[in-house]
Amino acid sequence: MYQLLNTPPVPQLPWQDRPKNASELPLWRYDGNPVIGRHPQTGIARVFNSAVLPYQGGFIASIRGERTNGIPLIFLARSKDGLSWEIEKEPIDLRDKNGSPVALRYAYDPRLVLVDGVYYVIWCQDFYGAAIGMAKTTDFVHFEKLENPFLPFNRNAVLFPRKIGGLYTLLSRPSDSGHTPFGDIFLSQSPDMEFWGHHRHVMSPSGNWWENVKIGAGAAPIETDLGWLLFYHGVTGTCNGFVYSIGGAILDRDEPSRVLYRCKTFLLTPETDYEQQGFVPNVCFPCAAVADGATRRIALYYGAADTTVALAFTTVEEVLRYITENSETSEEDRSSGIR
Amino acid sequence: MYQLLNTPPVPQLPWQDRPKNASELPLWRYDGNPVIGRHPQTGIARVFNSAVLPYQGGFIASIRGERTNGIPLIFLARSKDGLSWEIEKEPIDLRDKNGSPVALRYAYDPRLVLVDGVYYVIWCQDFYGAAIGMAKTTDFVHFEKLENPFLPFNRNAVLFPRKIGGLYTLLSRPSDSGHTPFGDIFLSQSPDMEFWGHHRHVMSPSGNWWENVKIGAGAAPIETDLGWLLFYHGVTGTCNGFVYSIGGAILDRDEPSRVLYRCKTFLLTPETDYEQQGFVPNVCFPCAAVADGATRRIALYYGAADTTVALAFTTVEEVLRYITENSETSEEDRSSGIR
Amino acid sequence: MYQLLNTPPVPQLPWQDRPKNASELPLWRYDGNPVIGRHPQTGIARVFNSAVLPYQGGFIASIRGERTNGIPLIFLARSKDGLSWEIEKEPIDLRDKNGSPVALRYAYDPRLVLVDGVYYVIWCQDFYGAAIGMAKTTDFVHFEKLENPFLPFNRNAVLFPRKIGGLYTLLSRPSDSGHTPFGDIFLSQSPDMEFWGHHRHVMSPSGNWWENVKIGAGAAPIETDLGWLLFYHGVTGTCNGFVYSIGGAILDRDEPSRVLYRCKTFLLTPETDYEQQGFVPNVCFPCAAVADGATRRIALYYGAADTTVALAFTTVEEVLRYITENSETSEEDRSSGIR
Amino acid sequence: MYQLLNTPPVPQLPWQDRPKNASELPLWRYDGNPVIGRHPQTGIARVFNSAVLPYQGGFIASIRGERTNGIPLIFLARSKDGLSWEIEKEPIDLRDKNGSPVALRYAYDPRLVLVDGVYYVIWCQDFYGAAIGMAKTTDFVHFEKLENPFLPFNRNAVLFPRKIGGLYTLLSRPSDSGHTPFGDIFLSQSPDMEFWGHHRHVMSPSGNWWENVKIGAGAAPIETDLGWLLFYHGVTGTCNGFVYSIGGAILDRDEPSRVLYRCKTFLLTPETDYEQQGFVPNVCFPCAAVADGATRRIALYYGAADTTVALAFTTVEEVLRYITENSETSEEDRSSGIR
Amino acid sequence: MYQLLNTPPVPQLPWQDRPKNASELPLWRYDGNPVIGRHPQTGIARVFNSAVLPYQGGFIASIRGERTNGIPLIFLARSKDGLSWEIEKEPIDLRDKNGSPVALRYAYDPRLVLVDGVYYVIWCQDFYGAAIGMAKTTDFVHFEKLENPFLPFNRNAVLFPRKIGGLYTLLSRPSDSGHTPFGDIFLSQSPDMEFWGHHRHVMSPSGNWWENVKIGAGAAPIETDLGWLLFYHGVTGTCNGFVYSIGGAILDRDEPSRVLYRCKTFLLTPETDYEQQGFVPNVCFPCAAVADGATRRIALYYGAADTTVALAFTTVEEVLRYITENSETSEEDRSSGIR
Amino acid sequence: MYQLLNTPPVPQLPWQDRPKNASELPLWRYDGNPVIGRHPQTGIARVFNSAVLPYQGGFIASIRGERTNGIPLIFLARSKDGLSWEIEKEPIDLRDKNGSPVALRYAYDPRLVLVDGVYYVIWCQDFYGAAIGMAKTTDFVHFEKLENPFLPFNRNAVLFPRKIGGLYTLLSRPSDSGHTPFGDIFLSQSPDMEFWGHHRHVMSPSGNWWENVKIGAGAAPIETDLGWLLFYHGVTGTCNGFVYSIGGAILDRDEPSRVLYRCKTFLLTPETDYEQQGFVPNVCFPCAAVADGATRRIALYYGAADTTVALAFTTVEEVLRYITENSETSEEDRSSGIR
Repeated sequence: MYQLLNTPPVPQLPWQDRPKNASELPLWRYDGNPVIGRHPQTGIARVFNSAVLPYQGGFIASIRGERTNGIPLIFLARSKDGLSWEIEKEPIDLRDKNGSPVALRYAYDPRLVLVDGVYYVIWCQDFYGAAIGMAKTTDFVHFEKLENPFLPFNRNAVLFPRKIGGLYTLLSRPSDSGHTPFGDIFLSQSPDMEFWGHHRHVMSPSGNWWENVKIGAGAAPIETDLGWLLFYHGVTGTCNGFVYSIGGAILDRDEPSRVLYRCKTFLLTPETDYEQQGFVPNVCFPCAAVADGATRRIALYYGAADTTVALAFTTVEEVLRYITENSETSEEDRSSGIR
Repeated sequence: MYQLLNTPPVPQLPWQDRPKNASELPLWRYDGNPVIGRHPQTGIARVFNSAVLPYQGGFIASIRGERTNGIPLIFLARSKDGLSWEIEKEPIDLRDKNGSPVALRYAYDPRLVLVDGVYYVIWCQDFYGAAIGMAKTTDFVHFEKLENPFLPFNRNAVLFPRKIGGLYTLLSRPSDSGHTPFGDIFLSQSPDMEFWGHHRHVMSPSGNWWENVKIGAGAAPIETDLGWLLFYHGVTGTCNGFVYSIGGAILDRDEPSRVLYRCKTFLLTPETDYEQQGFVPNVCFPCAAVADGATRRIALYYGAADTTVALAFTTVEEVLRYITENSETSEEDRSSGIR
Repeated sequence: MYQLLNTPPVPQLPWQDRPKNASELPLWRYDGNPVIGRHPQTGIARVFNSAVLPYQGGFIASIRGERTNGIPLIFLARSKDGLSWEIEKEPIDLRDKNGSPVALRYAYDPRLVLVDGVYYVIWCQDFYGAAIGMAKTTDFVHFEKLENPFLPFNRNAVLFPRKIGGLYTLLSRPSDSGHTPFGDIFLSQSPDMEFWGHHRHVMSPSGNWWENVKIGAGAAPIETDLGWLLFYHGVTGTCNGFVYSIGGAILDRDEPSRVLYRCKTFLLTPETDYEQQGFVPNVCFPCAAVADGATRRIALYYGAADTTVALAFTTVEEVLRYITENSETSEEDRSSGIR
Repeated sequence: MYQLLNTPPVPQLPWQDRPKNASELPLWRYDGNPVIGRHPQTGIARVFNSAVLPYQGGFIASIRGERTNGIPLIFLARSKDGLSWEIEKEPIDLRDKNGSPVALRYAYDPRLVLVDGVYYVIWCQDFYGAAIGMAKTTDFVHFEKLENPFLPFNRNAVLFPRKIGGLYTLLSRPSDSGHTPFGDIFLSQSPDMEFWGHHRHVMSPSGNWWENVKIGAGAAPIETDLGWLLFYHGVTGTCNGFVYSIGGAILDRDEPSRVLYRCKTFLLTPETDYEQQGFVPNVCFPCAAVADGATRRIALYYGAADTTVALAFTTVEEVLRYITENSETSEEDRSSGIR
Repeated sequence: MYQLLNTPPVPQLPWQDRPKNASELPLWRYDGNPVIGRHPQTGIARVFNSAVLPYQGGFIASIRGERTNGIPLIFLARSKDGLSWEIEKEPIDLRDKNGSPVALRYAYDPRLVLVDGVYYVIWCQDFYGAAIGMAKTTDFVHFEKLENPFLPFNRNAVLFPRKIGGLYTLLSRPSDSGHTPFGDIFLSQSPDMEFWGHHRHVMSPSGNWWENVKIGAGAAPIETDLGWLLFYHGVTGTCNGFVYSIGGAILDRDEPSRVLYRCKTFLLTPETDYEQQGFVPNVCFPCAAVADGATRRIALYYGAADTTVALAFTTVEEVLRYITENSETSEEDRSSGIR
Repeated sequence: MYQLLNTPPVPQLPWQDRPKNASELPLWRYDGNPVIGRHPQTGIARVFNSAVLPYQGGFIASIRGERTNGIPLIFLARSKDGLSWEIEKEPIDLRDKNGSPVALRYAYDPRLVLVDGVYYVIWCQDFYGAAIGMAKTTDFVHFEKLENPFLPFNRNAVLFPRKIGGLYTLLSRPSDSGHTPFGDIFLSQSPDMEFWGHHRHVMSPSGNWWENVKIGAGAAPIETDLGWLLFYHGVTGTCNGFVYSIGGAILDRDEPSRVLYRCKTFLLTPETDYEQQGFVPNVCFPCAAVADGATRRIALYYGAADTTVALAFTTVEEVLRYITENSETSEEDRSSGIR
């Protein structure tokens, strides 16, 4: 039986049992999807690609709020049960080291990770091109913007929930500034969240067609005795656009640029109306996976069609067994990723 | 209270009150949409992007009829109540000055405007490239084709409903001959509908993402004491294609290349099945706004997903207040647009 | 009254009468569509673009099974009534001349044709580029892979159900290796299914917009006294992707590179949820047309949205009359197609 | 013997006789080419694509001066013999109707034409996109900027040297804002140089490969009894870029949108070092043809490789005979060009 | 010492010894290059990419004549010494089986090969797309056009000078219809020059950058005891266009889809003015290699910059030694090339 | 008079006085260019884009050696006078921290900088995409490869010759993996050459057309009392490819992401045969500027046409005066470059 490590209980975790008629894939959808629909707050047209953490007996989320002017910023949302959400009216109030306000032109696809008692929000913003932005908070009131970790162009950065080898460890996906038709996952480390190095390649798109165009880290990795469980997005290209599916991999606990297992099939792919239709059709974009240390259940939040927030479930046992039984790794996946 | 100018009463105007659960946006949809569905007439597969005018106590429309061979032409349609429509079997019978028939290879996205007692139909046609075509009629039986006002490549031409400074005044959008990933609104004038000049730039795509790729005039402007109310389309690009939303602006009454107010948010964006799914998903394309001089209600006709005709409502009061309160104009918008 | 030639009775043919409210187009949809939905078999995500033949009192199909790793292979499926299908768990077991297994990287869009007592499966595969692959069987257990008939790049190959002038005769569509924005139908012949020549051009995309980007043969042609009835796909391009419709043509019986009639309108175009929404929205892709020699009814199987298998009906009488009455051929269509 | 019409003597015209070893083509190069080399004036890196007129017993030229910041503006140059040129240090001083200065962001490829005693300079400039700019002068000191004749996007506008049917007549080439891979020549007319209409199509690229990508008017047409002699540029595309050659056509004197003769071969194509090497290799771009009414000699000025100004010679007799003997016109060429 | 097989003496072969200061590469240029310059015949602008065979004590060549209308056709040329050439005024007079004339829209890059006493000319032509055309002759007066061997899109077809395994054997490069940014060499066979099959993959572009975009067969292979010596072109892409170099490989004598040796460096790359400057800069395109069975010298004809014909020399000994010593083959190269 | 700081005398510096007929631009070419021609060493086809430092009374250079297989690697070269060079036969022997050899697939455009007694070589290499590689040496025999400083995609990294604010400081240009049609200069810092942060934007392409597509740092900056003198390349795009010119800027000494002066004109642009013709026509690519602390002369080495190494001269006085007198900076240039 696979063990969750460093994962406290989350009794308030939303849950539904696997439906009888489900396919053999290890993820199943919440039947009340979407969890957050259109126009959830005045001035906000769509909410999606948002990250969730347990907080004070309920949940807190950093969300991508696409305002009615089409420009996304990061908002906070709160929920008791992880299903019904209250969204703040104003975007988070970023400050620099000296407490002066920092206004972003845009910010999207935030992830939210707790490391050593500090909450980090990590997003994509403009830095003379698409780049990674970061802030930290301990109270979700004061947000201090950190140094941008990388040069442009980069997206989909996800922090590990603890230091590895004494260093903060971050996954990201170098890209271009447009609709990027390529993309690999890389890993970088920092002693201080200020200077970054030790860049390693983790995974490329594979020969499995559902992820043959680009891939990007999704949820912050979950630590298990088998390794870090990573939910990520894999993208394929059709004559009528991209299709974003959810994939899974297990990274080495001590040297996470090494991929131990990588599932050759998707775990979830767009199939419902709310995934196939919307602002960007055919998108399932995972951003947060909350694991309950007690029951070993996992609730996975994902953006649907760049329009709504949806929810799927699995258990540590089912998803790890499925990934390991359907694993296919390349030499490049298994390597340390340095050249 | 904002006043409508030069706008007679239209007692037959279709209408529904604003629904209780509507968002803060000033437009709301007719709940019987789409008004015209697929295969409305033998040989016609889809009708959309069509313009409507009050006529003889009911309504008349110049419509884009996409025939079963895929080629669009302009048809007439008639309705008593603006909701139920009868479409003619044959496209309009264009004649040149001498009464000889003029056959167009294709014609699409017609607008219909009444100026000084003459009805003008304005569309996009082939003139060794996509270009503006025009005809006039007084009885909707005899249509005289006028000189093409411009060289190619151009689309989305809309006439003002009266002369300004003694000159016919036309908005249009220079483009290329393909799926044009750019586009600004320009204004041109003519003493005689034969020779054109006084070209002025009106608006560019803005930094508000819903309209950051291209924009084009939609309905013929409505005259108010605040200025010309223009409903236009704004387009953004996603990795899976364009999204067309409806925007609003107020142009100076005497020098309409000056934008007085421009709403930074969309007024309507694709959200329903009939807007998100069809021949071209995610399109709301406004072509005619009928205002009732008595009640100051507005019925806005728009093409949905290049597949059907849909209808939305607002009032002069609500839409002008929303636009002015959410206005954001650039120096270029406010300028006369000459270089 | 048009006659079917060389077409035995198929009493088990599925059938529904033309609905009352159907349009003037000669094809109508089965009201239980899709015939095969998502996840029809463990490990298979989607089944579409599949070909059907009467077999042993029921039906057999070679299907495109898009596995959960996103890679398509050819599977067999069996049905008693043509509506309810049982799909094999493993792809067909290809062998070379010596009985050694042949593993394909991928294979898709299979057609299945019976010629002189031998069943031929023809598909698109990798041959250092997209190319035509072929196999033969007499028992649907042993499949011998034949020589690839052509160099890359080619797709949509369809065999005629009998030799013409003593030569095997094949339609195909030369292409590139991507999402090919062009494509004509060509014809080639072979004395022995090993060496190929007598290449002739059949048809180009036409000026009718529904098929102005590319065309490709769909179902194996049906022999009538008027000529070979060919259902094919025609593709148009919108700013949001391709739209695949179904067209019809009649080829000369003795010299089938000559097009006798070609319908200027589509016979079916995406209009339903299952055609407009899915992995590739807006696709109707015909792969097999089963005609009943007794009733002269035709059941047409087509892929919908690259996601499911759907079914439509017509009769020889209706479809031939519609095609001939709406025919428009170019000099190039009518020519022998040699340069 | 072909006659020049409305063409005064130009005794100062530069001239060299046809060399013995010339090919059969009717143009031959000046052996002192280039006439104006690099860095002809402080702050100007390159001069090319410039137009020349006889003036006060010598010549005056409006030239494209590509400054050392890479941005082109229009400068004046003066010459006694048409070979040795003195270039002004500052660009021409444009004024609006009220005498206020008009600063252009850029201006290039000027043509210079004398109509009814007024000199018109016509160029390409920014008007929220590439567009035609115009000014008039009578003394080459005061330049009044006129209304821009067209909406963007347009280039290569050339005025006829006299009104036709009482209307100013202008050739131009609608385009896009980039390196335009298409382009036809159109004609437009104006009663007053303020409002424009009567748009007609003149010629498209032809099946002759040297001009199969785009064409554009070059020198102002020369009036002969056979028709208007037009030197234009024709462009073909290779895997290593465009090649610009010089072509010739004869337009109807009274209805110049009708092409009477069009030479199927180029008259000059890049072959020398100064044409094949430079800022844009492989460019011969004609901008002015000066005809001497006495000798019927023609001196043709053309830009070479977007780097220098070069000169070629012919006679009315030779060039008209060559064009008529090698003429090939399409139905579209010969038509009036209205749709 | 390497032996030439089936290669008669060619005493008239042009020759120059290797210059003292030559690099280590095994090919050296004729110091009188180009052999054929611009305008070699009335109506012909450029001659390049042409093939040469010994004939009646001198040489005969099938040449690509780019006429002054820009359209290429195949012309014959004759020479006593292989250096000074006389070119016919009219293109070759193609006839079909019945003696009726066959007019090609265009034809280019001809190869000329003698098999079993018959001369075959093989070129690229229009067959509803770029495709291979072929003719045979025994007297260079009567040319019978053969069946086109393949469907479009294909270029650079080269016949082996004898049957292999009793079958005519042809190399070619499937492509698209534009400036093709990809391309592998394939092999096909025919019992009768009418029907073609046994398609095999020979080589792909390699990781050696000079040939990392596309490759294509050049000269007809020369038979040696080591295998077939193939001179081919390899293409790389720069930000300013393609660069065509000359490479060398040795194919298995009996199964020539197997590559025994493949030189990892180019043998010649554009370095001179006539190779670096012209209609298409940076092109060395080999089309014929004439070997002298007595001296084992080789004269290689190649097109330079799509503008002229040039000549280089080597010996069987030098070139085979260089290729084998610098060989690098992939598993795919060495395989039989069937999938 | 401007002072050189921290710059020792270089008595061996090559030199020629400014020629009489030079233009007003502050750089003039060495009249013996190119300094290193084609095939300078067995196995090397072309040498260009190479960096030079004074060393042991002469000079040492890290050079881009494009081998005859087309793949570039870094070689060393030595010279007494900076004009005549001896190139090593093998590329530099890179080792990791443990002394194990590191083989690069390719490496190009090296810069060579001396900081605190250690020589750093910095290049572009493959790191699952184009990225910056680095090594250090003190004896030009042992080269230790350092951590890659950044994620892909990046090129044109240049180290400052001393720490600034106690941190190593590096310029670079984030890019894509192809022929990158965009590119800004950024600055990054490191306490230890292992971890990098403090990313700042320095300059974007400007509105001056010679540098309107992309820019990249060229030579390591030269310290003067006015600020850091940076020679960089600026690129414009024509219809026939990119043109690379040399520009100049002065960066703040303490906060070098601030641009104090930026020359609006190029300092040198391709004009000679060896710059306009070659593997990539129209390229002047600066890589090293050697200043003599005694005479304040500067010798600038630049790659010409990606084919040879060339040399130009200036003085500190002339170049700083020209840059400051022709300076044009944007607010973004002058800012600290953080967002």
